[in-house]
Amino acid sequence: MSGDRGGEDALVRAIRELSARAGDAGGVRVGIGDDCAVLEPHAGATVLATTDLLLEDVHFRRRWAEPADIGWKALAVNLSDIAAMGGRPRWALVALACPEETTAEEVVAFYEGALALARPHDVAVVGGDTSASPAGWLVNVTLLGEATGAPRLRSSARPGDRLAVTGPLGRAAAGLAVLERGTAPPGVSAAHLADVTAAHLRPRPRVEEGAWLGGAAGVTAMMDVSDGIGIDLPRLAAESGVAARIDVDRLPVDEATRAVAAALGADATAWATGGGEDYELLLSCESAAFERLRRGLADRFGVRLTAIGEVTAGTGVSWRLHGREITVARGFEHFAARPTPSGARP
Amino acid sequence: MSGDRGGEDALVRAIRELSARAGDAGGVRVGIGDDCAVLEPHAGATVLATTDLLLEDVHFRRRWAEPADIGWKALAVNLSDIAAMGGRPRWALVALACPEETTAEEVVAFYEGALALARPHDVAVVGGDTSASPAGWLVNVTLLGEATGAPRLRSSARPGDRLAVTGPLGRAAAGLAVLERGTAPPGVSAAHLADVTAAHLRPRPRVEEGAWLGGAAGVTAMMDVSDGIGIDLPRLAAESGVAARIDVDRLPVDEATRAVAAALGADATAWATGGGEDYELLLSCESAAFERLRRGLADRFGVRLTAIGEVTAGTGVSWRLHGREITVARGFEHFAARPTPSGARP
Repeated sequence: MSGDRGGEDALVRAIRELSARAGDAGGVRVGIGDDCAVLEPHAGATVLATTDLLLEDVHFRRRWAEPADIGWKALAVNLSDIAAMGGRPRWALVALACPEETTAEEVVAFYEGALALARPHDVAVVGGDTSASPAGWLVNVTLLGEATGAPRLRSSARPGDRLAVTGPLGRAAAGLAVLERGTAPPGVSAAHLADVTAAHLRPRPRVEEGAWLGGAAGVTAMMDVSDGIGIDLPRLAAESGVAARIDVDRLPVDEATRAVAAALGADATAWATGGGEDYELLLSCESAAFERLRRGLADRFGVRLTAIGEVTAGTGVSWRLHGREITVARGFEHFAARPTPSGARP
Repeated sequence: MSGDRGGEDALVRAIRELSARAGDAGGVRVGIGDDCAVLEPHAGATVLATTDLLLEDVHFRRRWAEPADIGWKALAVNLSDIAAMGGRPRWALVALACPEETTAEEVVAFYEGALALARPHDVAVVGGDTSASPAGWLVNVTLLGEATGAPRLRSSARPGDRLAVTGPLGRAAAGLAVLERGTAPPGVSAAHLADVTAAHLRPRPRVEEGAWLGGAAGVTAMMDVSDGIGIDLPRLAAESGVAARIDVDRLPVDEATRAVAAALGADATAWATGGGEDYELLLSCESAAFERLRRGLADRFGVRLTAIGEVTAGTGVSWRLHGREITVARGFEHFAARPTPSGARP
């Protein structure tokens, strides 16, 4: 980073002021500035903790992700993990490393992006670390939350349960395809383009929906869809020791995603199963509870809950299209293949 | 990372088993494997949280740091932050990114290095994230701890207090100088070389000492010495709104560090003030309490507490050598100057 900014302490002071201005979200005895943050959980609550590392050219590209987008997304992926447990997010620790030529304004914009998402969910940034990076931007966010009841695990789905997912799938992948192309695909409306690129750059994790589902009767297991349902659903099934059957033609794909897929000659279903980064919630529930949960999410949050299949006894996941079993595109596994610096999949 | 290892899930399973074998440190309802860890703090305790990002060629070099050393050190720097608050470390989240060519054995060695330090302090690894890195190893550890009484802040030193530091200073810098040189300096004993290189590669944070000082009467402020006392002490003074006077000839420098400095024609005092990475504890205490604290640390832990100066009214830090005011080498500020990939200071 530029050496003329008065060093690390000045940066820490600026971030501290920014975080303090964001308002006290409660439960913070000491925030940024000491060796540790000192936090006061609610009596009787369990503490939820999750951490995610985001790297330039693996998880995002500076070509289209502004510093504020990076800050937003780094917080979003962690908020989604807390939501998936049915908990409430409370405190974030944000570590950032960026190249020497990064300006103080870019660093502040990064933190403002994170705070823009933190603030409406009453999340306080209580700690962090800043460093020079010899190789691009990299961010680690650790998010702490609380659960008052039993957290929703991914290991408690049972045969006979319904499988369901919030919102649409494949939208972030459609957005990524547009961003990688660099120019707008012909015949796609500006509103649709804005929808899909925002889904990729500034995902809106299901924070309130997750907290509500965490307290709702009949939800048996829950996780977020971060790597694509083609990877995440087999994880839920394996952790629960059950099998699952998915009707691929019931996977929710919205109009914007279909329009982009049509314009680019891409497969919207493959985006829905293997695109990843949608940060929707995947849940299993008692069959009899589905309709109540669906209506609850629609009425309270205007969010659609779609039944996509069933939990069965056994192991493995079978995917059916028009009644025939098919193989689906899996999501993105960070270790399965190396992302190429100029490649198709960040 | 090598693509033939069965992907990210297999790695997560291996790390989960490794962490589980490390024993249940308590308070973990759900560890690695779900969207979040689910933790149960003690009733009435505050939760301490700290995070640190360590990057190859900024904070360590693969030329001499083995994967197990990196894991150890990433945990050590965070343990030191919890110790500096007078708290007890409990739960760690460890995120790792490493290059494609990294083997599964190296990743496991990294986690074993972290666990080798976690285990004796009853710290459980409860979460993490793994990713491919396009540019070297990078590690983020977030450590959560607990404090039952009031945590020791860096902002509560008062004029008239004594300033003191645990253990010796400058040893990690001496170790780094030896490692950078590549060959043993002439005339330095093997034991001294082992002392200083271990101080750099495998620092032993003052975990038990910090917890004891956290409960001892008369300690007014505390922080750890991570960037060098030349940077860290001015931080403590500024946060407390006080000035400080340090007698440089009283700074504790051990025989091994002096021997290496003599052999290399280096300045041991500059290492002690500006070398950083010693992870000793710097504290202010009531004058009358010093002797009791000194004896307590010596008797319980065999650790020396050295009085190095006084807190005074005003602002700023003055450094005196043989009664004359001098300017001291400052520690390493990550943003003050860019580390050069082949440079003198990682």
